[in-house]
Amino acid sequence: MAKDIKTRIETANAEAFRRMVAADPVLVDVAPAGDVIPGLTDKMVLHSGPPVDWQRMSGAQKGAVIGMLLFEGWARSKEEAIKLLEDGAITLEPNHHHQTVGPMAGTITRSMWVFVVENKAFGNRAYCRQVEGRQQFGDSSQEALQDLIRWHDTWAPALRAGLRQMGGLSLKPIIARALQMGDELHNRPHAASSLFANAMAVPMIEAGIPKEALISTLRYLAGHQLFFLGLSMAAAKATADPARGIEYSTVVTAMARNGTEFGIQVSGLEGEWFTALAPPVKGLFLPGYGEQDAGLDIGDSAITETVGWGGFVLGGAPGILSFVGGTPEEALSYSRDMRQITVSTSPEFLIPALGFEGTAVGIDVRKVVQTNIPPIIDTAMAHKNPGHPIIGAGLVRPPLDCFKRALIRFAEKYGLK
Amino acid sequence: MAKDIKTRIETANAEAFRRMVAADPVLVDVAPAGDVIPGLTDKMVLHSGPPVDWQRMSGAQKGAVIGMLLFEGWARSKEEAIKLLEDGAITLEPNHHHQTVGPMAGTITRSMWVFVVENKAFGNRAYCRQVEGRQQFGDSSQEALQDLIRWHDTWAPALRAGLRQMGGLSLKPIIARALQMGDELHNRPHAASSLFANAMAVPMIEAGIPKEALISTLRYLAGHQLFFLGLSMAAAKATADPARGIEYSTVVTAMARNGTEFGIQVSGLEGEWFTALAPPVKGLFLPGYGEQDAGLDIGDSAITETVGWGGFVLGGAPGILSFVGGTPEEALSYSRDMRQITVSTSPEFLIPALGFEGTAVGIDVRKVVQTNIPPIIDTAMAHKNPGHPIIGAGLVRPPLDCFKRALIRFAEKYGLK
Repeated sequence: MAKDIKTRIETANAEAFRRMVAADPVLVDVAPAGDVIPGLTDKMVLHSGPPVDWQRMSGAQKGAVIGMLLFEGWARSKEEAIKLLEDGAITLEPNHHHQTVGPMAGTITRSMWVFVVENKAFGNRAYCRQVEGRQQFGDSSQEALQDLIRWHDTWAPALRAGLRQMGGLSLKPIIARALQMGDELHNRPHAASSLFANAMAVPMIEAGIPKEALISTLRYLAGHQLFFLGLSMAAAKATADPARGIEYSTVVTAMARNGTEFGIQVSGLEGEWFTALAPPVKGLFLPGYGEQDAGLDIGDSAITETVGWGGFVLGGAPGILSFVGGTPEEALSYSRDMRQITVSTSPEFLIPALGFEGTAVGIDVRKVVQTNIPPIIDTAMAHKNPGHPIIGAGLVRPPLDCFKRALIRFAEKYGLK
Repeated sequence: MAKDIKTRIETANAEAFRRMVAADPVLVDVAPAGDVIPGLTDKMVLHSGPPVDWQRMSGAQKGAVIGMLLFEGWARSKEEAIKLLEDGAITLEPNHHHQTVGPMAGTITRSMWVFVVENKAFGNRAYCRQVEGRQQFGDSSQEALQDLIRWHDTWAPALRAGLRQMGGLSLKPIIARALQMGDELHNRPHAASSLFANAMAVPMIEAGIPKEALISTLRYLAGHQLFFLGLSMAAAKATADPARGIEYSTVVTAMARNGTEFGIQVSGLEGEWFTALAPPVKGLFLPGYGEQDAGLDIGDSAITETVGWGGFVLGGAPGILSFVGGTPEEALSYSRDMRQITVSTSPEFLIPALGFEGTAVGIDVRKVVQTNIPPIIDTAMAHKNPGHPIIGAGLVRPPLDCFKRALIRFAEKYGLK
């Protein structure tokens, strides 16, 4: 019996792994969230991490939600926004309940344009918003909203025109190349951002976008080294989702944080969250900020680690260490350690610094608990209070409790001892 | 007395190092070689490496010279070209005698458009031609000349227009970033090529280049991963030249090969070449080619190693190992070894994989001879016979004899025992 169950788990995990490595994420559109994200209605704000209500939201996420209410024009002041939120006039739901992910506070509302990534191997779609350095960190000032407005008015429509001209852009080749160019595709997607900018220039010109908008968009792309994070997150979400709901699979299908709690989801336990208090991030602070300012771990961006990028490929991206701290040797050992808690390695995403071995894919809850090695996540840091831009970056490990709780529930559901 | 000389040498080498790391290479123009390269006259072909006459030229260089005669219209057939060359109607001179460098055979004639890089810290200029995969390897077929023709007719003039629009492009920031993105800037300048394409898109649009030429040029840039090699070579030449002619300096100011001989030049022995037979390259072959096909080491591209890039930073560019062979550990040890034969490390060009230590700069002939560690060069391979495109890539070490001869001559010139 025990052996039979073990075989079932192994088979299910092999299938989850197979689906993840078979993914073929293609950027098919950039569109207003309200037009494309399933179930996203008026007066709804999607947020990162597991479910959380207004009262328990972290400072950064509160600030970002307020920012979205101002951006949408649902409130004319912070005070008005807070009143609406306290009155329950605004619905708050996790991105992950809507095939969506968002960086840091992760806030998405109907007028926010999002990337639409289709996994051509399975037909599912995933969505992610633009990455910037202020509003998503909890800064709701008029200045902080400028990037969202320009994204809405100019940059996103220009990208949509280019994408329609070219008929979609396959992300796998960009990701594979970027992993050999010092990117880990989470905190450091610089090469991918550059390759993406090059890929879009010609189709945007061909699409006949007016010169001013064209130049503004190309400048934005060339100057925004973190741009591709929004695409690697959408690609990762599109990659992870087909691995959901496989009976008996102990493979993690999402890791997400809201600044209050860290939550994971597991394939064989579809629809459930296993949460623990969000941990603090260990890392380096930007000038003017220190440990006393830091909020707890936040963002859906750990979806990149869920499919084997981010902290999992830190050994191939030592350039990020000046931002998050640590030595190249430590970075290599993180990447090697991750093989101990995953199903197998990718046949297509190869890390030169590890002798062209593949990225570690398919976090197995059992292996995390057995080895006491939690996944390593490479992340940015938000302030504990609303109203601040990015304050730093570093490394974080999810609480082992999330994995232990998932395993206990797994044993219960599948009748294990 | 011995001590006095030693101090003079150390002081001179420190000055050579200082000049190299103070360099500020800026791409100021792309222009027809005949308009800008000093001393380049009609019916002259510049070539890579130390001086060599037609009879002693390697097969690849012969093929490339023939290609240039056809490109210029000085001959209408290969036979006519060979006759002109045998009759001495064509002058052959090294690029290095004209502030110039060229990849592989390195052939440059008056109509070939070249990069014009000005070292703003010292006011000197250096030139390099476009990098492609056929003519410069000795293939003189009509098909092989197509890239040169498109470069001449469309791509180079478009880049010139963009550069004039923007007033020049500083290369140091691109180089510094690329070294943190898995580039070694010789065989693997992929990140730099991508960043360069990003930088040129907007100014080329602003310059009002006709749409067809604009799109053709942007496609060319986005699709040509080795594009930046021409710029890293020009930047390296502009960086190395101010270190020439410092009395008592034993620092190498050029390493260059013509497929027949490997030659080096030394600061305190300005104007002289120290040569030995060019060595074979150890590496990997493209399909259809093997060791029996390989010509000997060729190209001015070792100017990149002369200033501390290329093989010297292989530890930071493990992606290249799939092209040249070897392990990441070997690549790291090459980079560490180079510190033993150089004056010091760059304060600005940092290698994340080596804990953000600087690149090794300023090859000291004395240290090479004392340690028996020749510089390591990361290079492409040409066929031994004319008429072939690129056949492979690998690593090569210059003959120690070049360094020994230079040291003997140094002792003679400066009255050492």
